Amino acid sequence: MASYKAPVRDMRFILYDLLGADKRLCTLPGWGEFTADLIDPVLEEAGKICEEVLQPLNRSGDEEGCYIENGVVRTPKGFKEAYDAFTQGGWAALTCAPEDGGQGLPRTLGQMVQEMACSANMSLAIYAGLTQGAYAALRVHGSEELKRRYLPKLATGEWSGTMCLTEPHCGTDLGQIRTRAVPQPDGSYKITGTKIFISAGEHDLSRNIIHLVLARLPDAPKGIKGISLFLVPKLVPGADGNPGPRNSVTCASIEHKMGIKGSATCVMNFDEATGWLVGDVNKGMRAMFRMMNEARLAVGVQGMALGEAAYQGAVSYARDRLQGRALDKPRYPDKPADPILVHPDVRRMLLTARAYVEGARALAATISLKMDEASRSEDEEFKQEAEDLAAVMTPIIKALFTDIGFDVANIGVQVFGGHGYIREHGMEQYVRDARITQLYEGTNGVQALDLIGRKMSANGGRVLRRFFHPVEAFLKDHESDGDMADFVQPLAKAFGRLQQASVAIAFQGLKNPMDAAAGATEYLRLFGLVALGHQWALMAKTAQAKLAAGADGDEGFYKAKLATARFYMQRILPQTGALLSVVGAGGKAAAEFDDAQF
Amino acid sequence: MASYKAPVRDMRFILYDLLGADKRLCTLPGWGEFTADLIDPVLEEAGKICEEVLQPLNRSGDEEGCYIENGVVRTPKGFKEAYDAFTQGGWAALTCAPEDGGQGLPRTLGQMVQEMACSANMSLAIYAGLTQGAYAALRVHGSEELKRRYLPKLATGEWSGTMCLTEPHCGTDLGQIRTRAVPQPDGSYKITGTKIFISAGEHDLSRNIIHLVLARLPDAPKGIKGISLFLVPKLVPGADGNPGPRNSVTCASIEHKMGIKGSATCVMNFDEATGWLVGDVNKGMRAMFRMMNEARLAVGVQGMALGEAAYQGAVSYARDRLQGRALDKPRYPDKPADPILVHPDVRRMLLTARAYVEGARALAATISLKMDEASRSEDEEFKQEAEDLAAVMTPIIKALFTDIGFDVANIGVQVFGGHGYIREHGMEQYVRDARITQLYEGTNGVQALDLIGRKMSANGGRVLRRFFHPVEAFLKDHESDGDMADFVQPLAKAFGRLQQASVAIAFQGLKNPMDAAAGATEYLRLFGLVALGHQWALMAKTAQAKLAAGADGDEGFYKAKLATARFYMQRILPQTGALLSVVGAGGKAAAEFDDAQF
Repeated sequence: MASYKAPVRDMRFILYDLLGADKRLCTLPGWGEFTADLIDPVLEEAGKICEEVLQPLNRSGDEEGCYIENGVVRTPKGFKEAYDAFTQGGWAALTCAPEDGGQGLPRTLGQMVQEMACSANMSLAIYAGLTQGAYAALRVHGSEELKRRYLPKLATGEWSGTMCLTEPHCGTDLGQIRTRAVPQPDGSYKITGTKIFISAGEHDLSRNIIHLVLARLPDAPKGIKGISLFLVPKLVPGADGNPGPRNSVTCASIEHKMGIKGSATCVMNFDEATGWLVGDVNKGMRAMFRMMNEARLAVGVQGMALGEAAYQGAVSYARDRLQGRALDKPRYPDKPADPILVHPDVRRMLLTARAYVEGARALAATISLKMDEASRSEDEEFKQEAEDLAAVMTPIIKALFTDIGFDVANIGVQVFGGHGYIREHGMEQYVRDARITQLYEGTNGVQALDLIGRKMSANGGRVLRRFFHPVEAFLKDHESDGDMADFVQPLAKAFGRLQQASVAIAFQGLKNPMDAAAGATEYLRLFGLVALGHQWALMAKTAQAKLAAGADGDEGFYKAKLATARFYMQRILPQTGALLSVVGAGGKAAAEFDDAQF
Repeated sequence: MASYKAPVRDMRFILYDLLGADKRLCTLPGWGEFTADLIDPVLEEAGKICEEVLQPLNRSGDEEGCYIENGVVRTPKGFKEAYDAFTQGGWAALTCAPEDGGQGLPRTLGQMVQEMACSANMSLAIYAGLTQGAYAALRVHGSEELKRRYLPKLATGEWSGTMCLTEPHCGTDLGQIRTRAVPQPDGSYKITGTKIFISAGEHDLSRNIIHLVLARLPDAPKGIKGISLFLVPKLVPGADGNPGPRNSVTCASIEHKMGIKGSATCVMNFDEATGWLVGDVNKGMRAMFRMMNEARLAVGVQGMALGEAAYQGAVSYARDRLQGRALDKPRYPDKPADPILVHPDVRRMLLTARAYVEGARALAATISLKMDEASRSEDEEFKQEAEDLAAVMTPIIKALFTDIGFDVANIGVQVFGGHGYIREHGMEQYVRDARITQLYEGTNGVQALDLIGRKMSANGGRVLRRFFHPVEAFLKDHESDGDMADFVQPLAKAFGRLQQASVAIAFQGLKNPMDAAAGATEYLRLFGLVALGHQWALMAKTAQAKLAAGADGDEGFYKAKLATARFYMQRILPQTGALLSVVGAGGKAAAEFDDAQF
């Protein structure tokens, strides 16, 4: 059975060595205490609860799943106690505002705790994660009255939240939403319709469930411009703020899924349920997009987190499993066979996993630290820059991290050989759990279209340049740095390809948007691989500096970073060449295929 | 719920248009009747039983799985009746010798029927498939007495077969096998040991189960050279040939797996079970390799088959699901939205699936037809050539077809979006079922090592040249064929990369085998993509010729072939560039990573 150790060592490397977050966060207003002295125990304690409370329920939660008992959705045994321990320990409220009862931590740290929770037990982590999304949307767009009533309950996880977007006939194309909202004399609305795929739509973990629901007013314009957002509680709070009478929102059924079986995915019926408007009439998509962007970043982290868990399982098996001999000479002649860790193809798999996961973790932290700084900055230009960077990286983090998360989960199974296919070892669960991350919160194809559509063209390419300029500057600064040549040269080559591909997509888009869209997925991957390559070059530089300065007695760690960086440059980054070719080819071959012949 | 239509049209294209199998088979001794007049009804009828009898049990078989009831392994409801219909119809005995009660069909046809069965219901098809492997091994290596007693029962599927190789502590490294065989005065052996992962080890489909078991004699040399093969029946046949007393071989438990849940994967205990030697003492691996090579080709076909099934599901959903509008202009303005088939990213996915599956089908048929011709040929040189070609293509078909099968199964899910994750739609089952094909019969990493180890160096590269020379000749023949330039030029480029990669691997191997092994997986994929590229170029040429000759009123079909060929060349074959880079990089980065740091 799989176990899990929170990768605190790597997180500290990223926070302190790579980013200097311990120096940067504590200079921000209100975060003076965020030095290593506070960060270290947060990481350690979060690791402990994830390892000891969440992870032991991961397999059993998958086997048991959720079920409906007398009309009540039941989560697997132990989930309630674990959820309580997690929320009562303040781990769900980590980044929520102190005035709402949250811990007020930077997102950089919150994201690392989220990673740990998802590695340990993604199904369980989802309940808390969605609540955070609902909290964030309400905090920005909700009326004072709604905020006062709901934020403190959501912040702590005492009540949980959902996002109700999808309907049976529409997911990506939300303009087709049919759920109706009819205004009432008291300022509330009656909401009627069916929503599907509602994660945590109904369950037994929290006292109340707060649904954020997209619906259409009677006189709303057609399509996406006629959608408003509503808050619909499961139990309508009374004047005292406590949950009151049951609202007419019910769970019709739960889905039987490939994975995340401990997470209840519900069909929700709203039958003249009482709700309140969040934000402006017909501007529901704006509020929802805020929630969705948060969710997309979070889903990217889920992918990375499952990759980490699978990597750890694979390493432990590769050390223990004795099979065959190294091709040059036996490495452990006293044993009946060498551990499979010695075989080059197994090392290829493990290092691929490691290079993806650690690169992703560094990139995610880089972006979130920037967002943290922007959140406390008065400098409008800096804020805009951070917002732009987050905007361009959101689809990349969502799609790339979940694609590589799925790949790494599969590597985990592959290292186990046939044993990886057996449920009791826990490796195949990572594959099944990871598969959803490529689908929900906008499929990865939709992310790619967001990148080449909205993000690429936004403000004359300004958003894109927020990524391009720092990479260019880095390459220029290190072009004659001999020690860095192994990293800078491959990165420069890959970056050149990204530039070419960007030009190709832009030209295709001018001529025929269908042509640009045909290469969107490959373009996003090319972009993402360059972004990870940039992180690996930065990490290599950091590791070199640490080694030169004595490495604080942890030479092995920094040498491993350098070796992984080299592996990334030599064995993963070359994919960019093929991706550029494919982007350049455009969509003609696919477009000329006759629909009837599929 | 998924449905399935046997791809008879494409099979006929491959057999008649591409390969001229209808002209070639009927010139072979004993196969005079194998013209289109016989082949067509075989394909049609096989398609029918797969579509109507096997496929409807695919989902229910997955949901129900196998279970042990009062010590008996039960298969899912309906499996017994379907198995009986399939075997009694002669579909399991298709390629077995007529003297054993088989149909004596060429393997080219048998393989296509196998594909259909696996697309329709892989779990069920496995039972019949393993029997064919046991039959083939016994037919070549068994004594006359064993053959007389067992072959007719296996050929018809009345009795089923297994391969018992893996033990708890060894899978790939069979030299560690501990199962013992003690000779008895009557010439039989007492077999004792535990075997795991035994597909169809115990079940309720056939009257008797014949195990082929690897075991070690008391005085056998250590390692792989001390392994012998034994036949161990579940019920020992009496003098009349009917199943007699129960042998002391029992199923201790069945595995709970990610997929192929309708296929019973058993832990088998042999407790002084009576068995008989197959082939020579200590030469068990030779016989087992024959069986395993058959099985590896069959597993490759399984991967392709699941890809076909997933592709069909995805196409049907992409036609029905209305979501968004084509980016240039609405294609179906009368509908509330366009079908997602119009979106370039969806077309990318569908054509990727199609290009892989159809290319794989053509390659598999090309190789099996060559094997069929060799099996009836007196020409030793031709036989050797066919054997060499099969030898080099076996690891490629196993690993490439299962990797792309898994990828295509995932494409199927991705086209469905969130709905792909829901069990009732049947798409996620293809992913779970396909995952095993990359693991069993030698993981795909082991296939890659077989390619660069055994196959590449065999007979001074002669085996490799059986593939290289025809491709070279094709390229030379068409170098100035303007109509074929779109196909020949990309193929020539990719083939050049394969040649360079082959040289690189050969040099690395001379210096340090660990270095060559580090790029084995990428080398195999590069090789496989070129092999599919060759098939697509040949298919493009065939389609052009058919179109020039009037296309028999089926212009759409041949134009679709050309478009898919173009798609393959422009959007898939470029991967070869990145693969060459990675092969060229060697294994240094991974080797220098300190074991303790994983």
